[in-house]
Amino acid sequence: MLKVYGDYNSGNCYKIKLMLHLLGLEYQWFAVDILKGETETPEFLAKNPNGKVPVLELELEDGTCLWESNAILNYLADGSEFLPAEPRLRTQVLQWQFFEQYSHEPYIAVARFIQFYLGLPEERLAEYRKLQKRGYKALDVMEQQLNRTPYLVGEQYSIADVTLYAYTHVADQGGFDLSSYPGIQAWLARVASHPRHVGMLD
Amino acid sequence: MLKVYGDYNSGNCYKIKLMLHLLGLEYQWFAVDILKGETETPEFLAKNPNGKVPVLELELEDGTCLWESNAILNYLADGSEFLPAEPRLRTQVLQWQFFEQYSHEPYIAVARFIQFYLGLPEERLAEYRKLQKRGYKALDVMEQQLNRTPYLVGEQYSIADVTLYAYTHVADQGGFDLSSYPGIQAWLARVASHPRHVGMLD
Repeated sequence: MLKVYGDYNSGNCYKIKLMLHLLGLEYQWFAVDILKGETETPEFLAKNPNGKVPVLELELEDGTCLWESNAILNYLADGSEFLPAEPRLRTQVLQWQFFEQYSHEPYIAVARFIQFYLGLPEERLAEYRKLQKRGYKALDVMEQQLNRTPYLVGEQYSIADVTLYAYTHVADQGGFDLSSYPGIQAWLARVASHPRHVGMLD
Repeated sequence: MLKVYGDYNSGNCYKIKLMLHLLGLEYQWFAVDILKGETETPEFLAKNPNGKVPVLELELEDGTCLWESNAILNYLADGSEFLPAEPRLRTQVLQWQFFEQYSHEPYIAVARFIQFYLGLPEERLAEYRKLQKRGYKALDVMEQQLNRTPYLVGEQYSIADVTLYAYTHVADQGGFDLSSYPGIQAWLARVASHPRHVGMLD
């Protein structure tokens, strides 16, 4: 059985859980507490030398581990309806995934961490305000696309949506107000209405 | 003919140039000056709503544009020797590409920007020191892998190497000393020895 090493509160880990549910795959979940330093033990670093969750351990004798949430999504979804085979569409899926890791997650997830986990301490307020500004810029880019197409890559729910749903659906925990983003709001509801959808803390 | 919109000094743009040379593809290069705000014009934003270079414009009547350097590499290399078809290897290529955008580029490329372009101004020194620390962490992760295999994904030169070569080979411009990274040094020489290799400013 597939083994996932992750933290239930992490959006990056939630991506994997959501994908496994969408595909109806069985898995075992091993809770790893980042704040307790559990990603820095020798055992964990043997699975991912970069010391980050999630990690997917394959059902192979050699204990092969894959890391980086968006890479894992490509592995799991390959050949399914969630990852188009057509080269241009497949590239657009990757485009949104790289956008997420570079222009979205470092602002929206980190603002959420500062507000939701740390309680918005005074000494991080200046940083938080900068993150807000850049996070809204990422939401603007998504809104443009979602005003044109129901999903990020055209008509089909793909792993690009799984990737960006993870932190966008909890953006309010980072102080982001989505009320002026009707395209994003309709898309969040569309993703959540999938019959095999599972919530972050379900 | 393929059209690339890019900045010759940007590692992210250099990835595309290097790939096109490795594949022997013809292209037209349109210089875009980030510092002059040329990525924020309405014409440019119509090509990439996120306002970043590089952009690859395909030879299609609809003017389809692809963005995000690492996504573009996957598009260009698909079906070639630089992108393995085997699912686990292909995922490992993506793994290193996402590692680059999240754990390497934001430190090494930004430290380079502060030192090489801005001349290490006093008011960014504290930030620069933090970037150094995290950049060295990324180099440690690469070194581990490159002590085991000649390329980042096994025995074959792949787009994972193109991705990480781009900013690693100019890491000294960000103040990074590679003398204690023999694995990385040998790998840089290996990549540069490819018969169709092209330098950043060639």
